[in-house]
Amino acid sequence: MTVKTVGIIGLGLIGGSMALDLKRRGYAERIVGVEQDPVHAAAAGTIGLVDAVLPYEQCLAEADIVVVAIPVGAAVPLVTDILNHFRDGAASGDGIPWRDKIVIDVCSTKEMICLETRYHPCRGQFVSTHPMAGTEYSGPWAAMEGMFDGRACIIANAEESDPKAVTAIEALYDCLHMRPIRMDAAQHDIHTAYVSHISHVTSFALALTVLDKEKDEKHIFDLASGGFSSTVRLAKSSADMWVPILTQNRDNVLQVIDTYIEKMQAFRDAIAVVDAGKIRSLIEDANHIKKIIR
Amino acid sequence: MTVKTVGIIGLGLIGGSMALDLKRRGYAERIVGVEQDPVHAAAAGTIGLVDAVLPYEQCLAEADIVVVAIPVGAAVPLVTDILNHFRDGAASGDGIPWRDKIVIDVCSTKEMICLETRYHPCRGQFVSTHPMAGTEYSGPWAAMEGMFDGRACIIANAEESDPKAVTAIEALYDCLHMRPIRMDAAQHDIHTAYVSHISHVTSFALALTVLDKEKDEKHIFDLASGGFSSTVRLAKSSADMWVPILTQNRDNVLQVIDTYIEKMQAFRDAIAVVDAGKIRSLIEDANHIKKIIR
Repeated sequence: MTVKTVGIIGLGLIGGSMALDLKRRGYAERIVGVEQDPVHAAAAGTIGLVDAVLPYEQCLAEADIVVVAIPVGAAVPLVTDILNHFRDGAASGDGIPWRDKIVIDVCSTKEMICLETRYHPCRGQFVSTHPMAGTEYSGPWAAMEGMFDGRACIIANAEESDPKAVTAIEALYDCLHMRPIRMDAAQHDIHTAYVSHISHVTSFALALTVLDKEKDEKHIFDLASGGFSSTVRLAKSSADMWVPILTQNRDNVLQVIDTYIEKMQAFRDAIAVVDAGKIRSLIEDANHIKKIIR
Repeated sequence: MTVKTVGIIGLGLIGGSMALDLKRRGYAERIVGVEQDPVHAAAAGTIGLVDAVLPYEQCLAEADIVVVAIPVGAAVPLVTDILNHFRDGAASGDGIPWRDKIVIDVCSTKEMICLETRYHPCRGQFVSTHPMAGTEYSGPWAAMEGMFDGRACIIANAEESDPKAVTAIEALYDCLHMRPIRMDAAQHDIHTAYVSHISHVTSFALALTVLDKEKDEKHIFDLASGGFSSTVRLAKSSADMWVPILTQNRDNVLQVIDTYIEKMQAFRDAIAVVDAGKIRSLIEDANHIKKIIR
């Protein structure tokens, strides 16, 4: 499939970074974007993230592949709306026929978006993905080249998409230098709660704790070694992105929070009675993460 | 004060990194070390961290400044032993007179070591410091150049040290490009519990949680974005270092763990009832950390 135009809806960290790499690596002739926030739209133009910022309907008409890169709460109805356009589309202007277009999302939760679109007549034209990359920053200013390099990208419920759509999107992620991994949507949400979502909650809680206990900001600045900075950095992540993730993935997130509180409590109890042997064994068990994460 | 010889006891991450920078920046003519672990001692020699690895007594005799860079549990009695040598020292061989030598520690808790040495007749020759720098790795292989650059270094209870000893040690830390900050030892332990020690406990608990919930290590590897890796990286820190810190700073650490568990519980409660407004306000409060930590 030769791709003429990619349309990216939402020119923030993820959408903007995709635009940069797809453009410079020649994946498509043209990268266009849709951006609701006028300041972000102007910034995306100034930074040069896309060739043009277009109105929504025009973007759908012109794009071969539409990337929905907005927070998951808004993405669920939007993907459905785009599939409705695919179903109803008549005159497609300069673009390829509506039946050949593909839409993807890049959201951090996959079960609800797959459930909501499951019985749509154009479901085959939707590929639900989750590129496992990002930073704690947001907006077009946060977009960066090479952000996806070497990371994994989940393709959720690939069997519900047309095989040729999946192939095209795997090629798109190959251009972003990502490793595609197929996974059931519900399984994805369980595993990302366990590995990714919990670390955001622990960072938010850490920031709240330090801001609460340490009234003197200068002490925080002075005493923050590199360790604290790295542990707390996810606490800069935006509420717009994380409120819908944590609510959509509620049951899995609650389960892992409960386990987490138990582990904290185990540390608390061992420290309270100065049980050095127990503290040591907790730390040594935690050290096993070394084998998995460099 | 012209420094001829610095003796570093413990050639791990901190001691080894100090040796590298003090040597290449010409702080002393000679950097010698003491290392109990024969493998570490051999590695320090191979890597070239120090000019010579010496027996303990010989190091004390030859060094103008002795740096105690071992875990805080062992450091407390060792500093006392070194001060006893300063008090009792007779023939000093090639070194400067015992009464002119200085010993410093670099431990992460300051109250106990200052209490234990408080009434020692040679207390003035001891400067208790905490360079706020490090990584999650340990041993001579973890030593790196420039690790201390731009960070803060606490000088605890400076008024209990001889002014000229403090001046000499401030010059040593200036050579390491650190900002010296004087602080009461007890205050130091409170503030480091609030800012630094808690982030190690939260990382250990995060690693334990993920290892517990996620039985499939491949999922951890695949789904770990940069965010998870950075949040969990302190969980690689060694038990040898952290057991004595957490027990010596027990009361302060327990206080901050309790506040932390309350914050986690607040997230849990808000997610459980899908109170999006409350989750948003928790996240936005946590975002304030942005103003302090880059």
